[in-house]
Amino acid sequence: MSAFLRPLGVEHPLVQAPMSGSNTPALVAAVSGAGGLGSLGAGYLEPQALLEQAAQIRAAIDRPFALNLFVLPDDFEVDEAQVDAARRRLDALMESEGLAVRTERPARWAPRFSDQLAALREARPAVASFAFGLLSTAQVRELQARNVRVVGTATSVAEARAWAERGADAICVQGAEAGGHRGTFLHAPEEALVGLFALLPLTVAAVDIPVFAAGGIMDGRGMVAAEVLGADASQLGTAFLACPESAAAEAWKRDLPQAADHRIGTIYSFSGRAARGLRNRYVAAMQPFAGELPPYPVLNALTAPLRRAAAAAGRGDLISEWCGQAAALVRPMPAAELVRMLMREYAAARCTPA
Amino acid sequence: MSAFLRPLGVEHPLVQAPMSGSNTPALVAAVSGAGGLGSLGAGYLEPQALLEQAAQIRAAIDRPFALNLFVLPDDFEVDEAQVDAARRRLDALMESEGLAVRTERPARWAPRFSDQLAALREARPAVASFAFGLLSTAQVRELQARNVRVVGTATSVAEARAWAERGADAICVQGAEAGGHRGTFLHAPEEALVGLFALLPLTVAAVDIPVFAAGGIMDGRGMVAAEVLGADASQLGTAFLACPESAAAEAWKRDLPQAADHRIGTIYSFSGRAARGLRNRYVAAMQPFAGELPPYPVLNALTAPLRRAAAAAGRGDLISEWCGQAAALVRPMPAAELVRMLMREYAAARCTPA
Repeated sequence: MSAFLRPLGVEHPLVQAPMSGSNTPALVAAVSGAGGLGSLGAGYLEPQALLEQAAQIRAAIDRPFALNLFVLPDDFEVDEAQVDAARRRLDALMESEGLAVRTERPARWAPRFSDQLAALREARPAVASFAFGLLSTAQVRELQARNVRVVGTATSVAEARAWAERGADAICVQGAEAGGHRGTFLHAPEEALVGLFALLPLTVAAVDIPVFAAGGIMDGRGMVAAEVLGADASQLGTAFLACPESAAAEAWKRDLPQAADHRIGTIYSFSGRAARGLRNRYVAAMQPFAGELPPYPVLNALTAPLRRAAAAAGRGDLISEWCGQAAALVRPMPAAELVRMLMREYAAARCTPA
Repeated sequence: MSAFLRPLGVEHPLVQAPMSGSNTPALVAAVSGAGGLGSLGAGYLEPQALLEQAAQIRAAIDRPFALNLFVLPDDFEVDEAQVDAARRRLDALMESEGLAVRTERPARWAPRFSDQLAALREARPAVASFAFGLLSTAQVRELQARNVRVVGTATSVAEARAWAERGADAICVQGAEAGGHRGTFLHAPEEALVGLFALLPLTVAAVDIPVFAAGGIMDGRGMVAAEVLGADASQLGTAFLACPESAAAEAWKRDLPQAADHRIGTIYSFSGRAARGLRNRYVAAMQPFAGELPPYPVLNALTAPLRRAAAAAGRGDLISEWCGQAAALVRPMPAAELVRMLMREYAAARCTPA
């Protein structure tokens, strides 16, 4: 029973992690409809798309759900020479791999965060979660005044404290095990790869708001283990990645059960920001040029059409196959069925006869 | 109740992790005497010292204990130019820090593993655990024939499988959270930083022998969480580091409760092998020269007298302050008292009323 989720009307101590680019309104609705908290990662969505997808979720279910954004500055410098060099590298790689796709300069590199935040306020989800940075105290209060609970993502105790000081309602600690982008904002990402067995009890001891646990949790046992270490709820992403409601490419879904733990690394070369995923052919090919690539969101925008084309061609080895370190424990099934299985396992593991 | 430890006469599902250089016969005896399994990390001990320390443990208690060795080749190449360059760097650092100590060329770089293994066979501990490499099947069988159980350290599922194939009696999975040297032997160490929330259930699913959990476990809650994820026993090192029976330098013990998670990194510059500890002044000073330093055990031998002198001068910022990522949760108290507290917490956390 989650102290944070239960008062919102969410039955289970279970959050489906936002997975920008892979999640769909159908996935969020399926999880929230089955008694968990579905989350729509809207970091890549323009305001209009965010509002449309929120409306799709509401049309499907009358249950609480979460929207998630990446906290980024609206304006940033772009190094044009670096962009040109990266485009040449990427185009050469696609050519050598036989893919008829080339990079393009996008109309804009990314949606403006302030516009996304305004749309989120309008959408008024029960929960808004944030990664990559901190909201201001005023931004937190504005959301809370509209009855939107604020969850901050932390990859270290210092980041958790910073969110608590800004008035967040809860913290989601992202253990080093977690798939996808690192939420890190106070440290270099490689300095904040703290495993959940350490990060969770440290954070619970450091802040007095509820703490969600994310990273490597794939089943009900993991949810119980997180609860024992002080988690108010467990947040699972990779576990839902192979569901039919997930928009992950089929090749990516197929690779998850075979993903060896030591092949799941921290990767910069798809988006320009540290993210955990499979070290596949693309990652190996771009490794020598890691230092020359533009930062997020520029590289992310440049590689987007390449990833789409590679996915369409069934080339999982050339796309960003984000996943947590326990990806091999994935169980492909409809999301609502997975929620029911997780909760059966959770109930069974919760009270071990002493 | 540990399926592996209970038949040996060890009451609690609790292993005190070997901590070569910091553990003492008194620490091992205190833990084994209190119903856990104490482990003496003997990786730096010459055969005679190993036998003497094993005899000291036996003189103190009539309980099972473990000896731990680093599996290394007896012979290795030494790059003399690299050694000279490293000595100049290290001597310059000590001078700039005002420490009147200089590197020396040791009589030998490290004890020979084959001699250590022969001494271990003679000592006949109840349990022998190994890191950094694999024993041969014949070596495993020789130990088992003398009634010594063999535990292999694994930092990935592939390493766990390799130990199981060699006939090990149990696996100790070392999560990325763990303090001290990484046991990694099949991968580059940075490729096998798998958090315990992922590594433990993955390994339990992959091998059919008991699995110990190590990394970030600091209290009874952590032991229960590990058990829920399938661990047969929990192995705690950092938790015992501030005990009076630990030989860790006083400055090191004092720094543990303040050790911020994001300041605990993977460090090569003390020993030439990846090890987790505090990124202190020495680590920052040596960072620019990381690529030039000799590998283990050469660098370890070169820095040994410097670390001893720095410790004697109370300079914690210049010694290898190994610790796991949850070091701040350390509770300094006599080891037997800590075992009793851990087991009280374990009993209390084990059965959560549903």
